[in-house]
Amino acid sequence: MSSRHPDRLFPSDPGLRQVARHLYSLVADAPIFSAHGHVEAEVLLDDEPFSDAATLLVTSDHYVTRLLHSIGIPLEALGLGENGAATDRKAIWRALCDNWHIFLGTPSRYWLEGELSTFGIDEPLTHDNADATFDLITAQLAEPQFRPRALFARFGIEAIATTDDPLSDLAAHRTLNEDAGFAGSLVPNFRPDRYVDPGESTWVSRLGMLADATGLDTADYAQFLDALRARRAHFVANGATATDHAMMDVGTEPLSDSDAAALHARALAGGLDAASATAYRRNMTFQMARMSTEDGLVMQLHPGVVRDHHRPTADEFGSDTGHDIPVPVSFTTGLRPLLEEFGNDPRFRMVLYTVDETTFSREIAPLAGFYPSVYMGVPWWFLDAPDAIARFRSAVTETAGFYKNAGFVDDTRAFCSIPERHDMSRRADSSYLARLVGENRMSESDAAKVIHDLVVTLPRRVFARTV
Amino acid sequence: MSSRHPDRLFPSDPGLRQVARHLYSLVADAPIFSAHGHVEAEVLLDDEPFSDAATLLVTSDHYVTRLLHSIGIPLEALGLGENGAATDRKAIWRALCDNWHIFLGTPSRYWLEGELSTFGIDEPLTHDNADATFDLITAQLAEPQFRPRALFARFGIEAIATTDDPLSDLAAHRTLNEDAGFAGSLVPNFRPDRYVDPGESTWVSRLGMLADATGLDTADYAQFLDALRARRAHFVANGATATDHAMMDVGTEPLSDSDAAALHARALAGGLDAASATAYRRNMTFQMARMSTEDGLVMQLHPGVVRDHHRPTADEFGSDTGHDIPVPVSFTTGLRPLLEEFGNDPRFRMVLYTVDETTFSREIAPLAGFYPSVYMGVPWWFLDAPDAIARFRSAVTETAGFYKNAGFVDDTRAFCSIPERHDMSRRADSSYLARLVGENRMSESDAAKVIHDLVVTLPRRVFARTV
Amino acid sequence: MSSRHPDRLFPSDPGLRQVARHLYSLVADAPIFSAHGHVEAEVLLDDEPFSDAATLLVTSDHYVTRLLHSIGIPLEALGLGENGAATDRKAIWRALCDNWHIFLGTPSRYWLEGELSTFGIDEPLTHDNADATFDLITAQLAEPQFRPRALFARFGIEAIATTDDPLSDLAAHRTLNEDAGFAGSLVPNFRPDRYVDPGESTWVSRLGMLADATGLDTADYAQFLDALRARRAHFVANGATATDHAMMDVGTEPLSDSDAAALHARALAGGLDAASATAYRRNMTFQMARMSTEDGLVMQLHPGVVRDHHRPTADEFGSDTGHDIPVPVSFTTGLRPLLEEFGNDPRFRMVLYTVDETTFSREIAPLAGFYPSVYMGVPWWFLDAPDAIARFRSAVTETAGFYKNAGFVDDTRAFCSIPERHDMSRRADSSYLARLVGENRMSESDAAKVIHDLVVTLPRRVFARTV
Repeated sequence: MSSRHPDRLFPSDPGLRQVARHLYSLVADAPIFSAHGHVEAEVLLDDEPFSDAATLLVTSDHYVTRLLHSIGIPLEALGLGENGAATDRKAIWRALCDNWHIFLGTPSRYWLEGELSTFGIDEPLTHDNADATFDLITAQLAEPQFRPRALFARFGIEAIATTDDPLSDLAAHRTLNEDAGFAGSLVPNFRPDRYVDPGESTWVSRLGMLADATGLDTADYAQFLDALRARRAHFVANGATATDHAMMDVGTEPLSDSDAAALHARALAGGLDAASATAYRRNMTFQMARMSTEDGLVMQLHPGVVRDHHRPTADEFGSDTGHDIPVPVSFTTGLRPLLEEFGNDPRFRMVLYTVDETTFSREIAPLAGFYPSVYMGVPWWFLDAPDAIARFRSAVTETAGFYKNAGFVDDTRAFCSIPERHDMSRRADSSYLARLVGENRMSESDAAKVIHDLVVTLPRRVFARTV
Repeated sequence: MSSRHPDRLFPSDPGLRQVARHLYSLVADAPIFSAHGHVEAEVLLDDEPFSDAATLLVTSDHYVTRLLHSIGIPLEALGLGENGAATDRKAIWRALCDNWHIFLGTPSRYWLEGELSTFGIDEPLTHDNADATFDLITAQLAEPQFRPRALFARFGIEAIATTDDPLSDLAAHRTLNEDAGFAGSLVPNFRPDRYVDPGESTWVSRLGMLADATGLDTADYAQFLDALRARRAHFVANGATATDHAMMDVGTEPLSDSDAAALHARALAGGLDAASATAYRRNMTFQMARMSTEDGLVMQLHPGVVRDHHRPTADEFGSDTGHDIPVPVSFTTGLRPLLEEFGNDPRFRMVLYTVDETTFSREIAPLAGFYPSVYMGVPWWFLDAPDAIARFRSAVTETAGFYKNAGFVDDTRAFCSIPERHDMSRRADSSYLARLVGENRMSESDAAKVIHDLVVTLPRRVFARTV
Repeated sequence: MSSRHPDRLFPSDPGLRQVARHLYSLVADAPIFSAHGHVEAEVLLDDEPFSDAATLLVTSDHYVTRLLHSIGIPLEALGLGENGAATDRKAIWRALCDNWHIFLGTPSRYWLEGELSTFGIDEPLTHDNADATFDLITAQLAEPQFRPRALFARFGIEAIATTDDPLSDLAAHRTLNEDAGFAGSLVPNFRPDRYVDPGESTWVSRLGMLADATGLDTADYAQFLDALRARRAHFVANGATATDHAMMDVGTEPLSDSDAAALHARALAGGLDAASATAYRRNMTFQMARMSTEDGLVMQLHPGVVRDHHRPTADEFGSDTGHDIPVPVSFTTGLRPLLEEFGNDPRFRMVLYTVDETTFSREIAPLAGFYPSVYMGVPWWFLDAPDAIARFRSAVTETAGFYKNAGFVDDTRAFCSIPERHDMSRRADSSYLARLVGENRMSESDAAKVIHDLVVTLPRRVFARTV
């Protein structure tokens, strides 16, 4: 039983709050359907108990380690890296408890409070309760009802997503989805980034593995494309509904087959300069869109981030350690070649995510407000937070309405935070709609339809094509 | 009689709402004065009845067709293009009624609700009332009080603007403005874009027509400038108070007369590369500013948009079909040469519009807060909407106050939406001012002065120089 | 006694207002500690009376002259420049009073109302009370309690900052800080811009002066760096805790010692092209960061502004005359080389300020949310205003929380506005926190801790390292 305020995130104005509360009540218990995320299939397949509070809620959540690092706590002291493996788990947990105030105002604190509440912890973490809360959580994690599959069921998940290498055999997904005891489904996303960018250091070796897996000669550009098609088909056969693509820019200028083949050969020979590698990658983004028109996989774009901004940290602790930093992105010019070719194609669907808010009203909403294929992704990453969601709704709705949204995706590695993330999104959207009702810009019954469609209808329509 | 809420768009907080209501009441019935727009003079000259509900409110409003297209309805099914001419008007109207929910939260729906209310329709459009509402509107359109001039009078229009080719003879304007039975005036805007950009495909032929019209040798750069001066004088003689300019960037670097003449000759000979064409165009923007210091026409800038983003659609259906998509724009560096020369010139006035919100606080307000010639245009296009207006006011007011605003312009082709657009602007500004009053940042009497000046004084002072 | 509303800037919602009022009450009387500003040390050293109302509150405040200029009042009519010296002071004051309405909604009006209140003037300035208010203020300025040091004490200043040339002997600071009668301290900022950019016209002569001052051969790159180190040490010895750096871009790519030495020699010989000058400057930004790791001076960055946008005005009236105009800035890519080297160094601290709001959520908060060295500066300049502060808090808090803020700095030349500026910041932050409390996102006791830390703890921790 949680002491968290039942009206949290709703507007403080009593009239608006009442409307928000009502709208939220309509979707509060709707099943979770999330077409993009980063949970590992093996977690659910193996269904092993989570080890302890610190590993689960600190070490493996780079949103949390990031902020503790920002006040001077080394990542190894939080359990990361080779040196971090030996760090005492209680010491890690104490680092969180001692610095609980630095999370004030962040969604990480909000999500963690929800997760703590699951373990019966409703008071703030403090220096004094660090050991007790660690023990309380860790003890419960050993119990059956806190194993991953039990949580999956308790969370009310209908479908969540993994993000997978094109060569993944997806055996874990198959096993799970064929298991009658596993309610809900785990849906892979096809993530080909390292296979389409010759600037990626492992590109040549990956093409070798791709050849091995498909029996095709990936040294030949046309067969390389067919090999990717084959892997996409494998994903489709295992329940995939979408691909996912990250890149610095969204350039999509296509190359002629002969130019592309020539660059392909040069790239394999190791002779591609940076500009040519970029041209090659942009053509591949275009080709991925073409394949989406063929196989129906929804194309998700996550551009505009400098990954591993602090290379010394990446070298020591790996990627996804909290220093992927956004840069400006230009969808309007970048996507033009792709959209001129496929933008009006009824078989094609594309979802645009961004951490550059300036594109909300300037580019994403105008594109989604014309192209039938373009959908607006929810605020991504740093922007998956109440105020940012309010800014997103304010920025895009007046241009593109509500019906070009792709619906909420949790996009998280932090499995236990999934229900809190969906709940936050539902509360935030209810609050936005309540304001429109309060300003007499929408009737309460229209708002009720909208919140239902945002949570229930649209994600299934866009990704599963079932509504 | 409309059932629309009399307090629509006002803040939900009862105290703020009361202040907003009072401020709005001071300007609710003020005559409409709009110095920029796209109504066709012939509509008022001919005063023919509008044909039917679908043609008037759907087919000819690209804000509406755009969003219907975005959910997969082909433009020809909405009456556009050669193939669309034969589309059944009732089928077009049904497309709107069946998808009325996709407009929730957009200003298009807000404006349409206002227009529907004019026809006595106050319930939402639905599948079931599609035919009845079509018939009800269409029947009324045949009556005298729904002809363009009758509506012009009923809308309380003192002056609205057209946007005209430099070679337009403006006969329609003359006839109308000399007609004692036509109260109010129709003011042309001089729009020279296609005459100042050699990158424009028709540039050479237009210079030929310009020579024919003026008797000047436009192959000579100096005479070409004089020809433009002659056409501007023709506009001034027919009531024009402003020019209007659209371009991808606002570069304004001047060329020496000899360099410009050389590029002019090369451009006519067809030998200009893209960079030289851009240099030529930027110089012409500078020359247009110089001419404004000579003849007093206020220079309006609408930069930063990729026109006809989806070229296949433009080829089939023409321009202005809903896929002009914004890009970032830089006023600070682009306008510097122009402003160093003319920015402090008391004869010069320039109004800056943008669909790149990032320039509101970063560039437009700081420029308007120093240069006497620079005025802030209202939020343009996609940003002509309640939340965007609130963001605009919040972003610019703290830097430039209220007295460097040029006032609301409707900038629309949708004639019947004009009063709703002005009304929305007045409500939105009243709501913003109410918040400042509520936060004890301004007295209510000061706010009353400001709303009056925004609606009544400033547009006339900036454009008509009469206040 | 002032009639200004005691709840000014607080939310209008009664519930939120009560929370804001309470939070504000906790810090309303906290001493002023500001690590960056532009007051001249001589003002306090000499302690001469301010001459008159117009010189103090209009002529010497470019926030005020800027906006009067924007409606067409020449700067010389406001007392600026050689020609302005003779302008009648009462005429200048009348220009302000006659146009008091153009400041509605701006922080300049808000600050001025606070300052006027100090002189017992609580009604609005008008044409009719211009002479009387001028006389009333001017008479009081002659009295002892309105001399600079008396005001310093009355304002409750613990420490404020000056911004100083590296060759400044800081004698005024020494004298003041050693004066037992001068409570509080005046802290210099080391501002080396003109010594690190060969594109600066006085660079060569400044290196000569630097050689004279240090006895080092600044024609030699290594000795040049040592000369800068020596001056930094002089600043440290005189109480400095920070440096300050302005530049168009924040590029920080280092050069090898030999490459840098070669550019240094070429620059002294006058043979550096623009690109090389930029490369030299960027390396120097990197070297300044290195020196900060050595001597502990906190590095403040103020990038992304075109200084002296209207060169004719700068030529006639000097710099800082109201036409420094922002441009986009990119911290993510620009700072990467510097942060890869020093970002995790516990000896290094950097504070990022911007007038490009787009970087708040996209770059500054993500960088501050990972790098221990990076702190978020308060909204700068045009953005030091209530709505902009609210946007800043909304944009950065969800990513970086409250504990990577460096605290408020007044950054002003307008000495008498200092207490108002700090007060405005405290009210604005209290209002933001009140909203989080009202939306049940934070407890009121947590908010009380945060407002205290923002005002009291963090600036001292970041700059003085005493907490």
